[in-house]
Amino acid sequence: MAGTDKTRISPLGAAPAVILVNPQLGENIGTAARAMANFGLHELRIVDPRDGWPNERALKTASGADWIIEKATIHATLEDALKDLTYVYATTARPRGMIKEVMTPEQAGTDMRLRIGRSEKLALLFGRERWGLNNDEVSLADMIITAPVNPAFASLNIAQAVLLVGYEWYKHEATTLGHATPELPALDGPGLVTPDTRPATKDELYGFFHHIETELDQAGFFKTAEKKPGMIRNMRNLFARAELTEQEVRSLRGMVASLTRAHLKRKGTTEE
Amino acid sequence: MAGTDKTRISPLGAAPAVILVNPQLGENIGTAARAMANFGLHELRIVDPRDGWPNERALKTASGADWIIEKATIHATLEDALKDLTYVYATTARPRGMIKEVMTPEQAGTDMRLRIGRSEKLALLFGRERWGLNNDEVSLADMIITAPVNPAFASLNIAQAVLLVGYEWYKHEATTLGHATPELPALDGPGLVTPDTRPATKDELYGFFHHIETELDQAGFFKTAEKKPGMIRNMRNLFARAELTEQEVRSLRGMVASLTRAHLKRKGTTEE
Repeated sequence: MAGTDKTRISPLGAAPAVILVNPQLGENIGTAARAMANFGLHELRIVDPRDGWPNERALKTASGADWIIEKATIHATLEDALKDLTYVYATTARPRGMIKEVMTPEQAGTDMRLRIGRSEKLALLFGRERWGLNNDEVSLADMIITAPVNPAFASLNIAQAVLLVGYEWYKHEATTLGHATPELPALDGPGLVTPDTRPATKDELYGFFHHIETELDQAGFFKTAEKKPGMIRNMRNLFARAELTEQEVRSLRGMVASLTRAHLKRKGTTEE
Repeated sequence: MAGTDKTRISPLGAAPAVILVNPQLGENIGTAARAMANFGLHELRIVDPRDGWPNERALKTASGADWIIEKATIHATLEDALKDLTYVYATTARPRGMIKEVMTPEQAGTDMRLRIGRSEKLALLFGRERWGLNNDEVSLADMIITAPVNPAFASLNIAQAVLLVGYEWYKHEATTLGHATPELPALDGPGLVTPDTRPATKDELYGFFHHIETELDQAGFFKTAEKKPGMIRNMRNLFARAELTEQEVRSLRGMVASLTRAHLKRKGTTEE
């Protein structure tokens, strides 16, 4: 399988549909579409949009995610929008006191990935601007998604909610496909981006240590013989931590050479 | 202990600062502040906002996160905004071909939590609307954060970028405060074990940069004016990666002083 093939993270891969229930502002439809595009969600269904359809403001605010707006389907009722689906997640700002399971976006990301892998047809429900989904609407879903948000400031707008859930979906998809962002080394562990060089060998590193330590010694940097080993150890630790590249080692040697030669040159070649 | 007490997830707990570099629209400052409030980030610093400050549009679009806008500090330069900080994450849309580590927002969430637990002072950098952060700005950071986004539609606006990184920060905070792992494993993970010293502040680090760059300049190390900015950037990246302590910064300055004075001294005191 082409784990590093960029084209496989396509906006057209199998993904959950996004259903906006009774959205009021075209702007929120557009920005939700944009957030969908960021994370490989492409199927938008809209239930009873207040200002009708098509909506020019939605297209304008989609910032280029036009294909999502243009292919969006409009439904008179939520039931109609859900007809062909097998599993539905409702996003809510807080638990509803309903006997229904609640997942975080992260858990839902994993769950959606598993289900899509089994060819289930999924959707994510997002409610209207002012008060979200009503209890009847939530009761049509199989699962609730609630994001951990500062309880003192818990309001997320529609596009933000789509963004967070989409992010968790895509994060998992990216991991599954074997890469996060195209050029990055990997998803696991921090790592270095090293364009045109390679990590220095220990031999090169020790060459630099020898160079700088000799010069510092001649310059009287190590005040006493007693202190010298500790000072050298600290300096080596410092440079070791930087995980120097071969090129950086050469630069550092160049710096030491420049600094030591500088005053010599100024003094020595007085005619210049 | 009040593990489930919601009030402990306070918007005023220790958290990374958010730094917006040269934002152009007040609206983006406001929506970024709102996203901060959602996830318990409360300290906003703004570098050179295009439309000046205060900005009424920022307050209007913050949707109630007024305290963040009102307490925001304004800085003429990024260096000034970074002075008191010890570790800085730059958010970028794509790798920059720089020798600097890259994390996902999720990894950064964990990393920030560990560092805050060690009382480090952190910040998250977000660039201007059209083209993000420039290379010089990125070079001032210790770590790059890049979110996995659909490469065919990768643009995130400032508030969305703040939202994703804030979400990953808060997710970890919520878990920590909620239950399970109240005490962080203070010493493992990336970062320094620093018995008798503390991480250098950016102010101290920049003092060293200024010192060595001035000396190297006088020594003719930067061969051409064209090459100089790139060489300086590479050098700053190298030392930034080492996460220097205050004591190490002093040592490095001592080394530079020794090396530059050495030959001068030898030449000057010929009677010895």
